[in-house]
Amino acid sequence: MIMIRAIVRPEKVGTVLSELIDAGFPAITKFDVYGRGKQRGVKVGEVVYDEIPKEMLLLVCDDIDQDDAVRVILEAARTGKEGNFGDGRIFVSPVETAFTISTGIEGL
Amino acid sequence: MIMIRAIVRPEKVGTVLSELIDAGFPAITKFDVYGRGKQRGVKVGEVVYDEIPKEMLLLVCDDIDQDDAVRVILEAARTGKEGNFGDGRIFVSPVETAFTISTGIEGL
Amino acid sequence: MIMIRAIVRPEKVGTVLSELIDAGFPAITKFDVYGRGKQRGVKVGEVVYDEIPKEMLLLVCDDIDQDDAVRVILEAARTGKEGNFGDGRIFVSPVETAFTISTGIEGL
Repeated sequence: MIMIRAIVRPEKVGTVLSELIDAGFPAITKFDVYGRGKQRGVKVGEVVYDEIPKEMLLLVCDDIDQDDAVRVILEAARTGKEGNFGDGRIFVSPVETAFTISTGIEGL
Repeated sequence: MIMIRAIVRPEKVGTVLSELIDAGFPAITKFDVYGRGKQRGVKVGEVVYDEIPKEMLLLVCDDIDQDDAVRVILEAARTGKEGNFGDGRIFVSPVETAFTISTGIEGL
Repeated sequence: MIMIRAIVRPEKVGTVLSELIDAGFPAITKFDVYGRGKQRGVKVGEVVYDEIPKEMLLLVCDDIDQDDAVRVILEAARTGKEGNFGDGRIFVSPVETAFTISTGIEGL
């Protein structure tokens, strides 16, 4: 089991979520974050904006679904054909187990 | 060491936190999230609400405390006797190490 | 690859982030959380404040950079010479892989 974290542009969240549903990943947790990447923010004239609003999406799935889910997010979250700085990152980390609170049942 | 993430209904947070304290788990981090599960949100008449406010609770503990902490959360976060869709999920993931900032000491 | 999570005092975020940049860790994700530690909050007279605003900082780096990044955060986030309850915690957890959305390239 893995957790996929995607840090994406807020304006891309709708697309990413609907593509994830279509690909069979409806269960998502989302929250607002501020981020900056290796570029240390955005420079507009003399002003540096180093806290750019992003959305964090969390998705827990089986290991076997990693490639699918990552591909869907990469394609849906990219801006333009070539992508741009600030399109975000995806991190994949291990999850040992999961429980559904309503039933108490262990597993995804 | 593990991190237990519980995504629970906001109205259940008070109960979950006080039960966790009573069970010996006072140290908690909490933040607001939006979530939807396999049901893809809640349908009220014709309208689908697919971003349901939830609270994310983070708890880091020793592996040996996992069963205890999970049981407490499952029981405190469930609605009614049978539980309901939307009661939330718990995810358990590995933590390699921890530090207390005030002392710099490694460990829980 | 690891994820370093630092839960710090809001008034320390600026210092921590600028020290991290200077140490070669510019890429950070940040969000608001509420936390309490083993002290179960802060007591002021008769009133207990058990939800203290904190900032969560996320930093993903190579394993080899762990000691550096942790040391920078510990030093920058501590209050006073001795540190105080409520200065926060750092958790280190494994990350299996990462992707840059703009390029689709795997890796940090």
